Formats: sequence, structure tokens, C-alpha cells
Amino acid sequence: MLENLKAEVCQANLDLVTYGLVIFTWGNVSAIDRQSGLVVIKPSGVAYDGMNPSQMVVVDLDGNVVEGNLRPSSDTPTHLELYKSFPEIGGIVHTHSTFATAWAQAGLDLPIVGTTHADYFANTIPCTRDMTEAEVKGAYEKETGSVIIDTFQSRGLNPVHIPGVLVKNHAPFTWGKDAHDAVHNSVVIEQVAKMTCMSKMLNPAMTMNPHLVTKHFERKHGQNAYYGQK
Amino acid sequence: MLENLKAEVCQANLDLVTYGLVIFTWGNVSAIDRQSGLVVIKPSGVAYDGMNPSQMVVVDLDGNVVEGNLRPSSDTPTHLELYKSFPEIGGIVHTHSTFATAWAQAGLDLPIVGTTHADYFANTIPCTRDMTEAEVKGAYEKETGSVIIDTFQSRGLNPVHIPGVLVKNHAPFTWGKDAHDAVHNSVVIEQVAKMTCMSKMLNPAMTMNPHLVTKHFERKHGQNAYYGQK
Amino acid sequence: MLENLKAEVCQANLDLVTYGLVIFTWGNVSAIDRQSGLVVIKPSGVAYDGMNPSQMVVVDLDGNVVEGNLRPSSDTPTHLELYKSFPEIGGIVHTHSTFATAWAQAGLDLPIVGTTHADYFANTIPCTRDMTEAEVKGAYEKETGSVIIDTFQSRGLNPVHIPGVLVKNHAPFTWGKDAHDAVHNSVVIEQVAKMTCMSKMLNPAMTMNPHLVTKHFERKHGQNAYYGQK
Amino acid sequence: MLENLKAEVCQANLDLVTYGLVIFTWGNVSAIDRQSGLVVIKPSGVAYDGMNPSQMVVVDLDGNVVEGNLRPSSDTPTHLELYKSFPEIGGIVHTHSTFATAWAQAGLDLPIVGTTHADYFANTIPCTRDMTEAEVKGAYEKETGSVIIDTFQSRGLNPVHIPGVLVKNHAPFTWGKDAHDAVHNSVVIEQVAKMTCMSKMLNPAMTMNPHLVTKHFERKHGQNAYYGQK
Repeated sequence: MLENLKAEVCQANLDLVTYGLVIFTWGNVSAIDRQSGLVVIKPSGVAYDGMNPSQMVVVDLDGNVVEGNLRPSSDTPTHLELYKSFPEIGGIVHTHSTFATAWAQAGLDLPIVGTTHADYFANTIPCTRDMTEAEVKGAYEKETGSVIIDTFQSRGLNPVHIPGVLVKNHAPFTWGKDAHDAVHNSVVIEQVAKMTCMSKMLNPAMTMNPHLVTKHFERKHGQNAYYGQK
Repeated sequence: MLENLKAEVCQANLDLVTYGLVIFTWGNVSAIDRQSGLVVIKPSGVAYDGMNPSQMVVVDLDGNVVEGNLRPSSDTPTHLELYKSFPEIGGIVHTHSTFATAWAQAGLDLPIVGTTHADYFANTIPCTRDMTEAEVKGAYEKETGSVIIDTFQSRGLNPVHIPGVLVKNHAPFTWGKDAHDAVHNSVVIEQVAKMTCMSKMLNPAMTMNPHLVTKHFERKHGQNAYYGQK
Repeated sequence: MLENLKAEVCQANLDLVTYGLVIFTWGNVSAIDRQSGLVVIKPSGVAYDGMNPSQMVVVDLDGNVVEGNLRPSSDTPTHLELYKSFPEIGGIVHTHSTFATAWAQAGLDLPIVGTTHADYFANTIPCTRDMTEAEVKGAYEKETGSVIIDTFQSRGLNPVHIPGVLVKNHAPFTWGKDAHDAVHNSVVIEQVAKMTCMSKMLNPAMTMNPHLVTKHFERKHGQNAYYGQK
Repeated sequence: MLENLKAEVCQANLDLVTYGLVIFTWGNVSAIDRQSGLVVIKPSGVAYDGMNPSQMVVVDLDGNVVEGNLRPSSDTPTHLELYKSFPEIGGIVHTHSTFATAWAQAGLDLPIVGTTHADYFANTIPCTRDMTEAEVKGAYEKETGSVIIDTFQSRGLNPVHIPGVLVKNHAPFTWGKDAHDAVHNSVVIEQVAKMTCMSKMLNPAMTMNPHLVTKHFERKHGQNAYYGQK
């Protein structure tokens, strides 16, 4: 079942190691088959070394395991909430990468101050609000998804234009049109988080003009995009 | 004697190099066989390159060498104090890893501000008090152990829930159920020390809600833990 | 056509990866053949892995593609402006290397406070001014070149003595007598940007005497240079 | 002539690359044969890749080339001054390693706040004073040596107990009983510079008790040293 998607998701999980974004079991990637509404995700707490596609777990959007001998990632309910609310996305990545996590721990939005950021994210990357005691003690991982969605809705943000978020006191989630694209965005958010951490120390008052942000985002993602070979 | 444990301890010492936590001879791992009360530890000042299990030194809890041609780590008395006072632990690691040592040199507790931290340590990781001149000029390494134990007792901390400490102006010690687990915790403390160093520079007023800390620690270590495949 | 130059430019692009200055497609190198007035440059959005000389694009100084099946780097007009205004230079590099970009995002000149800097750059490395909305919405990449040139002219800087610049909210450009030399300077600017970032955090009031700057620059680049084997 | 010493010095130069302390030609190692008063040193501006012992240059203490086809390091007169004034030392290293250079650029002493530092350096590592215009325009490299020596003499420091220095606005020099030992100290100074840079950002008021400093230095280097296997 979904053999290609399982191979893709497995490879995307391994890519997190290659890019230096995870150690131990600190990350997970999923992808969705929109036709069947089934999601393929990394098993919980399994090491990356020796991981293979047959270990991937298939779940439906209610979280029922449809195929697989292992338990799915404990973060599965967060992924499912995002797939349900963000219909354009096909893959999701969660890591505890160093600098993006540093911003999440600081409880700060990652401000847009450079074209590296604007090439992929059309604006500041939001940091979610504190979760309430009820949310944490309840369906915690599902509520984590709800808080992300609430952040995007209440701020009027488009998840296609801002394909990632910092969960306060936790770490980043990123997404994309597929698992590979979501991993790409997780590399970008870490690199931008590192550069902007240093920029903030050098000049806390740094700013960027909105017209430069728009130019770079549109150059790659707009109607008249002209970056690359397409 | 204790051939399996010597192999484990040797491998755990070599893992410190693989994880980038030590250079030269700046670290040591030990493990205890609780049945016999014997401790296996790295020899003092011996390079990691080419290290093998037969070089490990076996000592009793009074520090007498029971087997081995080399002198045990100069930090052996610190390890022994911890084994005597913390009966649940089976392995201990000492490194001078960069960011954990930076916090120890700063003389600051490593505050809990993220789930990465809370997944392994149930609260802030304490930094010990200054050692007195008498303690330093006396049985220094043994007194180092006593100061660690005193820190946990006077603050009412459980060493199983907080498997590590920062020794002021020195560096971290971590422990765990065995040598492998103690090494795992030494990787975690370094990674958390790095992330939280950056978070503190971004926002010195950062905080984390206690219910989120508890949730993450319990998710992995509580009665109803549901992380992983167990 | 220009087979040697295409090989050189291809290799220089690959060197950016080796030196850790680029990920994905975040950088480009070009070189000019001053006799024919033709420029060889990396194709736009093409991955470094597997890149070969035949993929390099040849353009004239008006930006017309003279040879090549791929579209040239979207930054080509910036390169062309620099070649037209700085007749002594033979190669140009653009990267988003971490620390140089951090200074560019901070909108700050990279101050000269060390001999590492002075060995290659005779003074502070300038950061350009904000680009106007008209410049950004117009011929953006060409205007980026104009702003760089304007920075050097208005400040009375010699691009041979200061072979690089920080484009505000963007990233560094460096140049040199050929592509290899320009790559060398892109390594230097990143290394100096990192060291001076740390120096600024340690001592925001740091300074360097002008006579020491002059000594080091002249020791390597002056009439009576005596560094090396020449 | 001095074939063993040439092999040692060549290897020590290559070790700088292995330890990540130098890029390009940014460093040099020398060693002295105290019997003959001859010094073996790296040639100036020669790349490390492919370097071999036959390229090492032999000079006397007046700087005359006694053997070798290449020009000696431009920093040779600095090395010679140190050998003449510090009779106990046998090897010298100069690098532009990142964090040690950051402190030198900041113009600050590297304060002693940890046992990692105290295991090798018995006190704060001094940063030299500004060089005068006359010193810089005169016999610059020789004067650099004089300023180092003056720093140790005027502060009453023992170069055997503090085997390194930060030259203001320049970078570190370290030394030791031979070239290998000097390289070891150059690794230590860089690692300590990095840790203490982070410590200072976390707590600018950090301090360390003198009795702890003495204990650690003496444990390794004192009359009754008991670290290691000796």
C-alpha cells in the first residue's frame, strides 16, 4: 500500500540526518495521499540508522493505523490537524534543529530581515502562543496542531506562503507540497534562524523593507517567477 | 572479570568522540556492576584512539584497583561518590563539552525552557556551589562528588529525574541506568546547553509553563509513557 | 567556446560547496574574458551535485545569451554591472554564507579590527544602502549592481583594495582577478564576518590602529610585498 | 640536516589543518634544536596540501637561512624573539583560529573561569598592548615578538605556566616543549576561547576561585602531578 509514498517518506526522514537537523529520534516526516486521505509517517522512537520504507506507518485522518507493525510517531495527531486544515500541503516535517528551536524556546517570532528568508517565506515566521493547562493535559498533540492553525487564522497568514511555524517552548514544524519540499523548508528555517540570531545580536533594531520581501518571494513563487529553469 | 561491562564502558568512551563531546583525553565514562559493587572506568590520560576493553580499570567502591595495569581516571572518586549516593544509577559520564561547560563556567543553572530539555530532564539542571578552599585542597575529586550530592539533596532533586549536573567552573557530569544511557544524556545536555544559550541571548526573560514540562517528561518517562515502541 | 573559462567557473562554483559557503542553489560564480567581453556564469537554480562545465552559460555584457541551453543565474545583471564598472576584476562570487549574511541582514558595515581582515581587505567592508521601491520593482538585479557601485564611488573606495561588499538585507558579493581569487575572498569574508561577530559581542568598542591595517595589507598586496614565495 | 625535526615540524603544521585551526596558509609551526641553535619553520605562503618535510626551512637565531630553497614564514622573526627570550620552549605555533582571534580582535585578555583552561594555563591568557606606529613601520614581526615578551615581563608571567598569548588585533601564538606540545596548546586555547566567549555572554560577571585554578594546574603540571599514567 502506497509503496512509493512510503519510500519517499523514509528517504525524507533520512535526509534530516544528512542535513544535520536531527540526532537520535528527534524528528519526523510525513506525507499525505490526498486521493485516499491516507498519511504515511515515521514510526515513534525508531532510530534513523537502518530505517527502511517497510517500517513507515499508514494512518487515516482520524489517526487509525491502516497498515504497519509499529506505532506511529507520537506527533501524528499534530500532523493530521495540519493536513485537515491546510488542504494545499502534501508533506510535514518536525525537528528540534538547534537555532529554530532556540527561537521557539525564546518564544519569539522569527522576523524577516533577509532575502534568504523571503525566498521561501513571505513574511515573519510566527511563534505560537502558550498552550493552556487544559490543552496540554488533554489531547496534547492534537491541540498542538490546533494552536498552529489558530495562529495562522488569527493572524491572517497563508500557510502556502509561510510554510512553517515555531511552536513555543518546543521546536519548528515545516510543510510543503510533498515530503521532500517540507524537508527543504526545514533546512531553510534552520539556516535563517541561525543567521537572524546573529543579526539580532549585531543589531537588535534591524529591519527590512516590505517591497524587497515581496520582490524575492515573487521572484521564486509568484505568477511571473523567473528564478531557475522552469 | 566483568568482560561485558568493560566492553560496554570502552564503547561508551569511544562514543564520546563520535558525538563530538571530547577531544584529547577530556572525558571519561564508568559503569557499575551493582551485584559485586565493582566499577569499570576509563584509565587516566589515555587517548581514545586505539582504546580497547582490556585497558579499562576495575575498582571497588573504596577506590582500590581490583584489576587493570593502568591508573584509573583521576575523576574516579567523583564517580564513586555518585554511585554510593545515587543507588538507581548504573553509568556515569564526565565531559568538557563546549556549551554545557560554558554554562558551568558562567556559574549558572541551565534553565528549562524547552521540550527537548523536558523530554530527558524534569527540571532546571543545577549548577553546583563554589567549592571551599578546604574542599579543593583536600580530597578534591571526592569532594566534587559530595558537592554534587549536596546540591541534589539541599534542593530536593531526584537524580533519576534530573540525570546530570553542571559543576561550577568545571563541566558537566551526567548519569543513567547504564553507560550507554549516561552518554545519551551527555549528548542531550550539550545540545540543550547550546540551544538555551542562544535562546537566552535572544530573550533573557524566556520562561516555560510547568504543565508543559511535566507533560513532556511524563510522555517519555512516566507511568503512562506513550513515546516509542515499548 | 571559452572551454577553459567554463571549466574554471564550474570548478569555482563547486568550490563554494567544498568550503561550506552554499547549500542548495544559494550561490553563483562568474568570470569574464576581457578580450571578447564575454562572461561565463552558473545556470539559474541548478544543483551543484553533478554540475559540469557544459552547463555554464556564456553571456555578453548586455546580458544576451551567446552560448548555453540553460538560463543564466538570475543574478547575472548584478555581475554584469560590476564587470562594466570595475575593469580590473576577472571573477565574481555571490553566496548567502552564514555570518557575512548575518552582517548584511543587520545592515552594518563589517568593521576592520583584525589582521586577518587587513591581509585581504584594506578597510571596513561596506554595507550598501536600502534600495528604493523603484529600484526593487524595476530592473532589480541590475539596480543591485548599481547600488554596489554607487557605494564604492560615493565613499571613495577602490574595489581592488576592498574586493567585496555586503548588500543590505541580502548577502555578500566578492570579486577578484579571476573566479578562483573571488572564491578565496568569499571564504575570507565569511571567516572574518564570524570572528568579528564574536569580537563585537565581547567588546562593542573594539578598534584597530590604521598603521597596523596598512602594514598587513601592504605586506601582501603592496609594491614591496614580502609575504609568500614570489 | 635536522631531518627528524623537519619531519616533526611538517607534521605539526599538517595537524593544524586536522584540528580545524587553519585554512589556506593562515598558520605556521616551528621548532628549535637548542644544541645547534637552529630553528626549523614552515615556508611562507605555501599550502598545507602536499606539504612535505623537505620544504621546511632551517634558519639560525639571527634569521639567516641555513638550509632550504623556500623563504621562511614571514612571521619567523616573531618566533626567533620568543626562542631567544623563553629558553625553556622548544616549539611555537601561530594560527588565526576563530575564537582565539575573536578575543584578540576584541583586545581582551582571555579570563580564567574554568578548569579546562586551568589544566593547561595557570592564569588568564594576556592580550598584548597596541603596537606603536614606529613598531609597526619598523621591524614589524620582530617587534611583535618584543611586545609579547614585554607583556610577560611587565606582568610577571612565566611563559612555561602560560604557554600562549593573544596578539592584539591579530591572533594567538602558543608554545610548548616541542612542536607537538605547542600544537596541543593551540587546540586548547581555541577551545577555551570558544567556551569562555559563550560564558561571558551568559554571565559577564563570571569568576573562578584561585584555589581551584591552582589545584587543576598543579594536578597536571605540579611537583605532585597525578593526572595520567606517568
